[in-house]
Amino acid sequence: MSAPHEHLSSRRLDQFQAYRERMNARILGSDGHLGIKRFFNLDTKAYQDGSLPKNTKELLGLVASMVLRCNDCIDYHLIQCVESGYSNEELDDAMNVALVVGGSIVIPHLRHAVDTMDLIRSGEDTEDSGK
Amino acid sequence: MSAPHEHLSSRRLDQFQAYRERMNARILGSDGHLGIKRFFNLDTKAYQDGSLPKNTKELLGLVASMVLRCNDCIDYHLIQCVESGYSNEELDDAMNVALVVGGSIVIPHLRHAVDTMDLIRSGEDTEDSGK
Amino acid sequence: MSAPHEHLSSRRLDQFQAYRERMNARILGSDGHLGIKRFFNLDTKAYQDGSLPKNTKELLGLVASMVLRCNDCIDYHLIQCVESGYSNEELDDAMNVALVVGGSIVIPHLRHAVDTMDLIRSGEDTEDSGK
Amino acid sequence: MSAPHEHLSSRRLDQFQAYRERMNARILGSDGHLGIKRFFNLDTKAYQDGSLPKNTKELLGLVASMVLRCNDCIDYHLIQCVESGYSNEELDDAMNVALVVGGSIVIPHLRHAVDTMDLIRSGEDTEDSGK
Amino acid sequence: MSAPHEHLSSRRLDQFQAYRERMNARILGSDGHLGIKRFFNLDTKAYQDGSLPKNTKELLGLVASMVLRCNDCIDYHLIQCVESGYSNEELDDAMNVALVVGGSIVIPHLRHAVDTMDLIRSGEDTEDSGK
Amino acid sequence: MSAPHEHLSSRRLDQFQAYRERMNARILGSDGHLGIKRFFNLDTKAYQDGSLPKNTKELLGLVASMVLRCNDCIDYHLIQCVESGYSNEELDDAMNVALVVGGSIVIPHLRHAVDTMDLIRSGEDTEDSGK
Repeated sequence: MSAPHEHLSSRRLDQFQAYRERMNARILGSDGHLGIKRFFNLDTKAYQDGSLPKNTKELLGLVASMVLRCNDCIDYHLIQCVESGYSNEELDDAMNVALVVGGSIVIPHLRHAVDTMDLIRSGEDTEDSGK
Repeated sequence: MSAPHEHLSSRRLDQFQAYRERMNARILGSDGHLGIKRFFNLDTKAYQDGSLPKNTKELLGLVASMVLRCNDCIDYHLIQCVESGYSNEELDDAMNVALVVGGSIVIPHLRHAVDTMDLIRSGEDTEDSGK
Repeated sequence: MSAPHEHLSSRRLDQFQAYRERMNARILGSDGHLGIKRFFNLDTKAYQDGSLPKNTKELLGLVASMVLRCNDCIDYHLIQCVESGYSNEELDDAMNVALVVGGSIVIPHLRHAVDTMDLIRSGEDTEDSGK
Repeated sequence: MSAPHEHLSSRRLDQFQAYRERMNARILGSDGHLGIKRFFNLDTKAYQDGSLPKNTKELLGLVASMVLRCNDCIDYHLIQCVESGYSNEELDDAMNVALVVGGSIVIPHLRHAVDTMDLIRSGEDTEDSGK
Repeated sequence: MSAPHEHLSSRRLDQFQAYRERMNARILGSDGHLGIKRFFNLDTKAYQDGSLPKNTKELLGLVASMVLRCNDCIDYHLIQCVESGYSNEELDDAMNVALVVGGSIVIPHLRHAVDTMDLIRSGEDTEDSGK
Repeated sequence: MSAPHEHLSSRRLDQFQAYRERMNARILGSDGHLGIKRFFNLDTKAYQDGSLPKNTKELLGLVASMVLRCNDCIDYHLIQCVESGYSNEELDDAMNVALVVGGSIVIPHLRHAVDTMDLIRSGEDTEDSGK
């Protein structure tokens, strides 16, 4: 994670998802590289229900993203994990494993993840209150 | 993973565990560093039952170890995962997530992991047949 | 790569190059560290024509930057690669190798790279149309 | 490090520290995860005077942060190192070790670190001139 | 790379290839994980002739393996690179890029790579002299 | 670190140093790559007395090697650190920083480092008793 320090982050997740969708459409378009398209397909399939359920695999993706220190990957898997029904306490417990395995170098990404969790939950509240 | 290529690996896990225990005793001994001892304690606690059950956290530890490419860590968590009751199919499904996240650079560690799984399972059989 | 998500990226490459030049001048100035200056010199020389031609070495630099996940390094080598005459199809083929070796954790950097490629190519067009 | 390229960076360190404090308070609050809190405690203790003095350990933290390429960690340890009394020449000498060990992939973080050093020193001057 | 230090390395490459083939057969067997099999397939295809020729892509794989510091991957791609006709001087030039990008932490893997190159070339000689 | 688990490690350091010297001579020989030779030269110079003393820089090299998880690099810098006069307590204090920054994934390398420290110290004793 780097400057600027997300002090105006209310729209951060929306911007991330819009950028992600726009670039993925660009990459997976008609003139995209076949090998890259197949990789994206494998990536999607890896988190679907299999011998392990989807929600467990999203948790694996979250912890892998944290120890490899990729904020975009963390945000993506956190969104999936919250949609899968994990509580903040369960996500904290998973992130604690990532912190112990990966060390203090993970802490800036833990801060980012907690910020993202709060944004996701606040978005849930907003949608609820809109009903 | 490196040479020699584990072609005589039947005693590999025993040697790993003996070496691990001997060095841990050395590190955690009476003249060991207090901070290091506390870290080992935190590490142990991170995988105990909490908001998430122990078995899920061992699976998180396995995938984190694979994407960070540490064979000793992989062996340790595989032993714990098998003891937690995961089938080979479930472990393969977790390792597939690690492979997709971490890429082909993980493949030598996947080979190592499969070798370790076979050693663990063959040890189980031997013990069973000994009853 | 992190927030904000480069949705207003038209000036992104210009800003990167200005910042890069300003800081390099600061680092390589008269009171700079001799070892660091020598490292920068070695770095420059590594991509010059040798037993391998410069363009092949820029491609090596691009793939190394992608699997090590450094956006600034990716941008720098992409600019060099485009100047060396590589087509988008060739660059995609190289980035596919990086994606397979480095895994899905490389995907945010692939998105960044494709965005950079589009910015470089659009700059080329603009300059052409300005003639 | 990524876009935007810190061309308006005068307030960057203040924003970083405010964000860091806000998120740390969130993480270490009454409903925070006990394991994570303990990790933060171990992290703090690791840099206190022990068999090695605090200032040497901050320098170790700086170099570890550079080779692992974490800008937030670099900024934090640079602030501590300057407070510990290291000169720019000494910090350059430490960063040269990080550059040689970690390679050119560290260069964008070296640029960031030099920018941070200048910001810290300029803040010192301002405070001095304010007396 | 780790102990023992390959002082009896004449059979090292043979052992690596035998182990690699045995474990790949185990992984790609009839009860193997479908996602993992597909990943291996993508991995193979990534190095075939495409917009870039196979030999360039093997060189990319070599440099990616060196900066990510995987000896098995280095050995595999070196064998392919030598088969593709690269001279030692060209391979040294590619490895120099990897060394500059990845830093001195790559040096043990550079030593391993040079040892492997010598083993491959000596194997070529032996086969030639056997004719 | 990988199998076999150094249970017969009494000659491990000797073998490492012999292998290291033999391969370095090969790499730095008359037909070696000029860029690589210059990199080795920069690497050597980075640890010599400068604005920081040599012993502090060897400690930086040790911690950088641990968080980047390179056993050969750890062994090399540990030998230098012991020659520089650091006590085991001081080295433990530095390694604690590496452990906290790098996380539990560093633990196998901490075990290796402690084993190496014991080998170095026992070699010192042997030489002393030989007087």
